[in-house]
Amino acid sequence: MSAGDLPAFATGLAGVPGELIDALSAPLVDHHVHTSFAGPVARAEFEECLNEGSPEPVPAYMTQFDSQIGFAVRRWCAPLLGLEPHASADDYWARRTELGEEAVARALLPAAGVRHWIVDPGYAGDRVAPTATLADWSGTPCSELIRLETLGEELLASGIAADDYPAAFRARLAERGPQVVGAKSIVAYRCGFDLDWSAPSDAAVRAEVRAWAAATGAATPRMASPLLSAFGVHAAAEAGLPIQFHVGLGDRDLDLHRVDPMLLLGLLRQPAIQRVPVLLLHCYPFHRQAGYLAQAFTNVSFDVGLAVNYAGARSVEVVAESLEMAPFARQLYSSDAWGPPEFHLLGSVLWRRGMARVLARWVREGDWGVADAVRVVRMIGSSNAERVYRLTT
Amino acid sequence: MSAGDLPAFATGLAGVPGELIDALSAPLVDHHVHTSFAGPVARAEFEECLNEGSPEPVPAYMTQFDSQIGFAVRRWCAPLLGLEPHASADDYWARRTELGEEAVARALLPAAGVRHWIVDPGYAGDRVAPTATLADWSGTPCSELIRLETLGEELLASGIAADDYPAAFRARLAERGPQVVGAKSIVAYRCGFDLDWSAPSDAAVRAEVRAWAAATGAATPRMASPLLSAFGVHAAAEAGLPIQFHVGLGDRDLDLHRVDPMLLLGLLRQPAIQRVPVLLLHCYPFHRQAGYLAQAFTNVSFDVGLAVNYAGARSVEVVAESLEMAPFARQLYSSDAWGPPEFHLLGSVLWRRGMARVLARWVREGDWGVADAVRVVRMIGSSNAERVYRLTT
Amino acid sequence: MSAGDLPAFATGLAGVPGELIDALSAPLVDHHVHTSFAGPVARAEFEECLNEGSPEPVPAYMTQFDSQIGFAVRRWCAPLLGLEPHASADDYWARRTELGEEAVARALLPAAGVRHWIVDPGYAGDRVAPTATLADWSGTPCSELIRLETLGEELLASGIAADDYPAAFRARLAERGPQVVGAKSIVAYRCGFDLDWSAPSDAAVRAEVRAWAAATGAATPRMASPLLSAFGVHAAAEAGLPIQFHVGLGDRDLDLHRVDPMLLLGLLRQPAIQRVPVLLLHCYPFHRQAGYLAQAFTNVSFDVGLAVNYAGARSVEVVAESLEMAPFARQLYSSDAWGPPEFHLLGSVLWRRGMARVLARWVREGDWGVADAVRVVRMIGSSNAERVYRLTT
Repeated sequence: MSAGDLPAFATGLAGVPGELIDALSAPLVDHHVHTSFAGPVARAEFEECLNEGSPEPVPAYMTQFDSQIGFAVRRWCAPLLGLEPHASADDYWARRTELGEEAVARALLPAAGVRHWIVDPGYAGDRVAPTATLADWSGTPCSELIRLETLGEELLASGIAADDYPAAFRARLAERGPQVVGAKSIVAYRCGFDLDWSAPSDAAVRAEVRAWAAATGAATPRMASPLLSAFGVHAAAEAGLPIQFHVGLGDRDLDLHRVDPMLLLGLLRQPAIQRVPVLLLHCYPFHRQAGYLAQAFTNVSFDVGLAVNYAGARSVEVVAESLEMAPFARQLYSSDAWGPPEFHLLGSVLWRRGMARVLARWVREGDWGVADAVRVVRMIGSSNAERVYRLTT
Repeated sequence: MSAGDLPAFATGLAGVPGELIDALSAPLVDHHVHTSFAGPVARAEFEECLNEGSPEPVPAYMTQFDSQIGFAVRRWCAPLLGLEPHASADDYWARRTELGEEAVARALLPAAGVRHWIVDPGYAGDRVAPTATLADWSGTPCSELIRLETLGEELLASGIAADDYPAAFRARLAERGPQVVGAKSIVAYRCGFDLDWSAPSDAAVRAEVRAWAAATGAATPRMASPLLSAFGVHAAAEAGLPIQFHVGLGDRDLDLHRVDPMLLLGLLRQPAIQRVPVLLLHCYPFHRQAGYLAQAFTNVSFDVGLAVNYAGARSVEVVAESLEMAPFARQLYSSDAWGPPEFHLLGSVLWRRGMARVLARWVREGDWGVADAVRVVRMIGSSNAERVYRLTT
Repeated sequence: MSAGDLPAFATGLAGVPGELIDALSAPLVDHHVHTSFAGPVARAEFEECLNEGSPEPVPAYMTQFDSQIGFAVRRWCAPLLGLEPHASADDYWARRTELGEEAVARALLPAAGVRHWIVDPGYAGDRVAPTATLADWSGTPCSELIRLETLGEELLASGIAADDYPAAFRARLAERGPQVVGAKSIVAYRCGFDLDWSAPSDAAVRAEVRAWAAATGAATPRMASPLLSAFGVHAAAEAGLPIQFHVGLGDRDLDLHRVDPMLLLGLLRQPAIQRVPVLLLHCYPFHRQAGYLAQAFTNVSFDVGLAVNYAGARSVEVVAESLEMAPFARQLYSSDAWGPPEFHLLGSVLWRRGMARVLARWVREGDWGVADAVRVVRMIGSSNAERVYRLTT
């Protein structure tokens, strides 16, 4: 294979075996992603997306392009928009504006090499496109997740009687469409993980909903009750749904030290929860703890999505650190992209590149056989997700 | 030296100086190990041993061979059983069965290149061989540890009067045989480290034993009292024994976040404890914290055993991370092998290989002199343990 | 450029682009440093300085030179004193003694290639030289920090009336000389970070000072009041001063797990604090958490000083890990040297070397453009500090 034939993710890396490049070139299942922007964004908004942690405007003394993820956008996305790698931020922005959001998305989304997206439609849905648009622009089928806190909030906003809440919640989970393949909890953002994870009685749920409704009044409801989060998770498990948890890295609304996945032990030890897959998302900087949990519980898997994007050139080490304690059957690929279609692309390029660099070294030095490396790529890249979510595409 | 002359641990690594290979080829002291299986094991049981965290059977959707440690077994142990490196799991299992447990052990244990084992005989002793068998099969002398929680449980099971417990506990420590070179605490598994570490009065111990006996009744006693654990540790210190603590990585019975070694500060700051060596075992993912404690306390040393085995090809980074804050006089080698003799071998191969790759780079790039590298290998590989445990072999 | 022309920090590294070497050769701003020894030190005292964590003498069974920082001293400082790299500890000590403290300092300090020191004059000031001496011996201008806990202790020692404390504290901050460019808190050493960070009322401060004075009596006052620390930090913010916090690694007086920077969230979320720069110092082993905070808060920056020195050859990975989540505009260089002028030199050599190795690889493999690498070096090496502290030199 000549250098010119190498896929982008492998450029500049020495001695990656052809079989490994082929395996990494195969389409991925991105098991946790959001859709991309519905329409034009201003540069300020785009730059804010290059920062996961801060809700503030980028300060005048800097550009957020001066970050690992900003450099990665200029390196890996620029060529797909007809620019040189490492094009300047200004040139990148000019070209992006010239093309428009849909053209950018249509250039970047298919290049991610994903054959199935599992979409969390629940975050800031007014700013991003519907799932169908992602499917259209990327040419790739989508499944969806149901966000547990959002479901509770929708019920409350609908004016439901507190007494009806438990049954209605369960009914909504039972009546989910065929496109829904899992549930997601963002309890990390609401109260952290250190809560009483036992399954609350329906009576307790009703009382809590009553108090919540009273406190909310005419305002938009926001579920921040540990008890209702625990109820939602148990209801999802009863419904037989795989349950995703936002873990670790996120915006500063959350207390990072309260979303160490070890604080989920009280939940994970319950037999009722062990009957469904549990997926720990992102996990940085607790990805080693997540890997340990994925070893210790046969129903737990994890990914290092989101972190891989923000770590940019350092993503190779984040990927490497994820390959320690967890059996290879319990790791998944995700981008956790939201907003800029650059992120859908970057997640896939950086994960493939990290795997290529790490696994090629192990193969070259004799620690792993190349056939094993190929198999692990397939497991983490797609087949584990197919098993967990029972995907048929 | 031609490639064919290289010891297994150095194969595939470029530019490791001959002096360093020689130093790493010298026999090790494995300061914390268990014995290997006494007799035949089924494949299911063997695969469960490839997972430290989970007490569950390996689920049907996977083989536990698909993990770093599983790959490492196939890579490093297969050739010693007459197979090719990376032999398939099925071929490996067939060959292993054909040979039988003793022949496998006799092939792998001596190949570990260990000249002294310090054995913890206290875990699941009915499933593994007696210490004498390890000595026989490996051709290597053994010392032993006395497990503090087990000692307390034996006393209670013997029907001792609560009033006699403190003196009897101390007497058992004093009357230990010459083969006993240290004590071990698994308080990590019983209540974590965040407890009152002050030395309890004998009166308090007696009252606690009384309560424990009453609660235990006719059942097999299990010591889970923080006070009795603190008593045991103080008694071991009074007896002048080096004290090992299980830290970090273990099965999911423990709360990993409650066995961060920093939570031992209240113990380590006590002058009574500072008079004996304290050894922090395994420590992953808190090995940086352990290295810091080994810097901060002149009587504290640590190792990254167990983690090195489970990390497989990633063990090089675990070893590298252990070489940061701690003086080189306060780091030890251990495998923490238990059960499969594969683990006794793997610990040594992976530690040697990790040291070879890390130190060779520092020598090659000029950060370290080769004589220093050789000396550090000797310290961590054997001489520190000889000093700590006053070994004379 | 021939090998002979390479600056010391780049020796032995393959393929570092000339532009990157040039950028790394440019003078640094060391934004947190102490002065070096005022006069002769004994070898025992010097060796104790090679250990940050322990207040104890180095035990007889070892030399503290057998550590990463000890090896780094022999590697990088020996040639500047006319010895071979890796000179033995005994030879190094003999040469050092022969030269005397001032000559050693005059050889090492200018070689650090620093063009501005920001000095914390507050620790063990009787053992180290005044700031003016550092400026003289290094030929480099200095600014200073004002230590908040020390200021409080000076006020109490002066016999101030408790009622006057709040105003006097503020007045001292307001009347600082032009050489003072920031404040520093060592609350890490006094009570950790998990405290009530709301701004206390002056009445509450007065009551606390009254209690503190009563408890102190004739003794030298030591501020260990969370409330007074919070007051000091808020007063510094009111005065518009950048505020440094000791975070992570330090001597064993502190509880390392209580100085995880995440425990500062309650402070960092306050608008009053967000109006001034906050600088997280050292941070090891929590530097990833610090990087996250520097992403999440536009006024937060961090460094990995101190840790870089103690990690020696491993500093390259500490530097690499610091280049993940934080925008490049929010990272600074510091040595946190104190005492041996070796540390002023080492900080700069190891940081430059780490950056050279890490960034050269990214450039070589195409992840970063060389112009970006050069720019990031300038930002972290000097221009960010100039902006944060409004330096004009």
